Amino acid sequence: MLKSPYSFILFFTITAFSAPAQNQDSLMIQKISTEILLNGKAYSNLYTLSKTVGPRLSGSAGMYKGEQWGLQALKEAGADNVYLQQCMVPHWVRGKKEFAGYKTKNRKNDTQYKVLALGNTIATGDKGILAEVIEVKNFDELDKRKEEVKGKIVFFNYPFNKTLLRGAYGDAVRYRVNGPSAAAKYGAVAVIVRSVTGAYDDYPHTGTMHYDENLPKVPAVAISTMGADKLSADIKGVYKNEKLFLQTNCKMQPDTIGHNVIGEIKGSEFPDEIITVGGHLDSWDPGEGASDDGTGIVKSIEIIRVFKTLGYQPKRTIRIVLFANEENGLRGATKYAEEAKLKNEKHIMAMESDGGAEYPRGFVCGMTKDQYAKVQNWKKYFEHADAARFAFSDGGGGGADIGPLQQAFKTPQFGLITTGQRYFDVHHSAADTFDKVNAQELNLCAVVMASMVYLVDKYGL
Amino acid sequence: MLKSPYSFILFFTITAFSAPAQNQDSLMIQKISTEILLNGKAYSNLYTLSKTVGPRLSGSAGMYKGEQWGLQALKEAGADNVYLQQCMVPHWVRGKKEFAGYKTKNRKNDTQYKVLALGNTIATGDKGILAEVIEVKNFDELDKRKEEVKGKIVFFNYPFNKTLLRGAYGDAVRYRVNGPSAAAKYGAVAVIVRSVTGAYDDYPHTGTMHYDENLPKVPAVAISTMGADKLSADIKGVYKNEKLFLQTNCKMQPDTIGHNVIGEIKGSEFPDEIITVGGHLDSWDPGEGASDDGTGIVKSIEIIRVFKTLGYQPKRTIRIVLFANEENGLRGATKYAEEAKLKNEKHIMAMESDGGAEYPRGFVCGMTKDQYAKVQNWKKYFEHADAARFAFSDGGGGGADIGPLQQAFKTPQFGLITTGQRYFDVHHSAADTFDKVNAQELNLCAVVMASMVYLVDKYGL
Repeated sequence: MLKSPYSFILFFTITAFSAPAQNQDSLMIQKISTEILLNGKAYSNLYTLSKTVGPRLSGSAGMYKGEQWGLQALKEAGADNVYLQQCMVPHWVRGKKEFAGYKTKNRKNDTQYKVLALGNTIATGDKGILAEVIEVKNFDELDKRKEEVKGKIVFFNYPFNKTLLRGAYGDAVRYRVNGPSAAAKYGAVAVIVRSVTGAYDDYPHTGTMHYDENLPKVPAVAISTMGADKLSADIKGVYKNEKLFLQTNCKMQPDTIGHNVIGEIKGSEFPDEIITVGGHLDSWDPGEGASDDGTGIVKSIEIIRVFKTLGYQPKRTIRIVLFANEENGLRGATKYAEEAKLKNEKHIMAMESDGGAEYPRGFVCGMTKDQYAKVQNWKKYFEHADAARFAFSDGGGGGADIGPLQQAFKTPQFGLITTGQRYFDVHHSAADTFDKVNAQELNLCAVVMASMVYLVDKYGL
Repeated sequence: MLKSPYSFILFFTITAFSAPAQNQDSLMIQKISTEILLNGKAYSNLYTLSKTVGPRLSGSAGMYKGEQWGLQALKEAGADNVYLQQCMVPHWVRGKKEFAGYKTKNRKNDTQYKVLALGNTIATGDKGILAEVIEVKNFDELDKRKEEVKGKIVFFNYPFNKTLLRGAYGDAVRYRVNGPSAAAKYGAVAVIVRSVTGAYDDYPHTGTMHYDENLPKVPAVAISTMGADKLSADIKGVYKNEKLFLQTNCKMQPDTIGHNVIGEIKGSEFPDEIITVGGHLDSWDPGEGASDDGTGIVKSIEIIRVFKTLGYQPKRTIRIVLFANEENGLRGATKYAEEAKLKNEKHIMAMESDGGAEYPRGFVCGMTKDQYAKVQNWKKYFEHADAARFAFSDGGGGGADIGPLQQAFKTPQFGLITTGQRYFDVHHSAADTFDKVNAQELNLCAVVMASMVYLVDKYGL
């Protein structure tokens, strides 16, 4: 398109800010929108985070570099005060590159599959594991075939169900999180999990998992989706009844020191009432942690920048938190809530973005019905960005990092909703790089978040 | 994200098809959705179109290759009959690469800017044009400074206004379409237009333009957005009062033969009632014509494939049209409507997708109020895909290629709406390549289009 786009285009401009602002709030939200869409710094911040810091797994050198980056970015955005909040974080290291494949006598014919050890798992050690692979589609099949499992590597080949749209991840991630112990229960010696992604490519997607303390711990890896299909064919074909060699070299070191990175604008009228907005600073080690969760971080920082640039003084304290260790421990979020409790802070709202930066559609609203009713009245301020989908949740649901705060104080929560179909294509893999993020979509997310913070700050909840 | 995603995710699954289908239509639309999301061929079709055919400008070898690709793809999708509809198309060729820059005596210091001749423009010829550049922000400034224009190259440096969201293109494209004649009116010798894009990079974005037949025709080029900023600085700085050298080598050849490529499923009850669905097969010459409009083509073809795969027999005739020459002539669409008129065909609905394949949000509905009221009743079938935004338009608005049909028959129209923030980043430039399209978003667009075709076929309008 388009030769003569006028009729088509005119139709759409009615959704932009073409009408005169109806009131002071419309006007302020229009200013926020214009400033971010024309002069936003979220995208350039994401560039430096992705390209000069890169991956930021808890305990790694990247984590410390990321903390310094965060302090600087918050200062540059204009925060009144910027500080670190210390917490202990797990220090899991991947070590030497993993190997999964069939070793033949003629080494030229080795078949390898792209795998990544799952976060927090134990390793096979130098000797590796040599065992037959048994493929199961799901937990039901595992239970039915439990007699066949002993001494084998269980391969959970559960597909990412694209028909579930935003529900596909939650449906499939069970195998990554609980698969290792479920298989160990029946005597498996290791686990391979199909990557939890809708993408069909050769990147394995790692992520955390949970060992049942009452069961043996077994090494576990994620295999790329292409690799999963190949392995599935190979064990029925060329490598039938043969043993696969698996080697992982990861290690859980003693806990180490990490930090939440925090920047605030002090409230003018109610400085003791705190609005927390954030994402997590840590990331998995492949890729650049750009979508997960660089985007959440830079959107949050942008809220301080836009308020300061517009000379807007909030009534309440706006606290931007770049949480430590969301990926494999949630220690930053836990520490944040503990400290808040100790200091008897008053937390009136928490907002999180940890789902990438696709086109924003609205918020999950984890709050009381009365609070939700109030929020519903603000829908009109989000129509211009087509982001007025406010979805009620009475049990939190805003995000992992603001969960502990909700448990501590019943703080009402907002979790940003986006169209959300591309995020898991890159999530926890080497494909999570800066180039996958679109500047305008990132800025629109920041507009929507800043607008809601403005309204909650002004009117409370 | 996410460590403990269950509460977050469960919230969303209610929007997917988890509830029992309420009726036959829900069930059919669920089947369409499942088939396309799990087994869709649109993405692999887009791959072969982008990578084995590539750019398909009218009259080029790529156009003919594209027509053959289209015939084959429609046959493979299962169309009952597939044929070509001949039309004459303009045959504009770019020729040798353009040059725009300052030539200094020491050739090492030449400054070049990335430019592309606008479609259908005349060339400077071998000798090029050597003239000073005058920069104007808009038509108003051009009018005010008309005395300064004679003998100069007018540089329209009008920014893509990102705050207008979907309206930004229509707002800025005026300078590309009408800028050359507007400048020629005051004696300009050539025109440079800032690329009509929200992307900030070094790709020029071409596109068609319109010469006023009563005014001298002048050569015109698009300059990349980075190039535009550099040129703007250079003419105030290092190259103040110096002459820029511009050379373009394009040429309008005599009209040549092109074709609309058509595939049909014959209706079982009302074969004479025609539902036309399409996009355009031609594309600009840089890039691969992947988003514009490869995506529109492959989504349309997918409708035939899904109906055939599900064994669904429509009542009316579903006609998929891969239109010729949308970009620089609209001859395919014009021919299609003329033939329809000559044959006295009955066209009950037309649908177009020519805005890329981002997340679908609904349709522009160009129809009567009564027809729109009927369509409104179907919203429930589009909620699962978050694509229930049906926007009324009483003057067409569905798209350029179904415009002539609307003028001929007042045929009600649907134009697919997507979130639409990434399309113009790549549009008409070398960046319009396959890798910019997301498979799931493409498939969701096809689901939404096929679902609406199913409903209109079943119930009429």
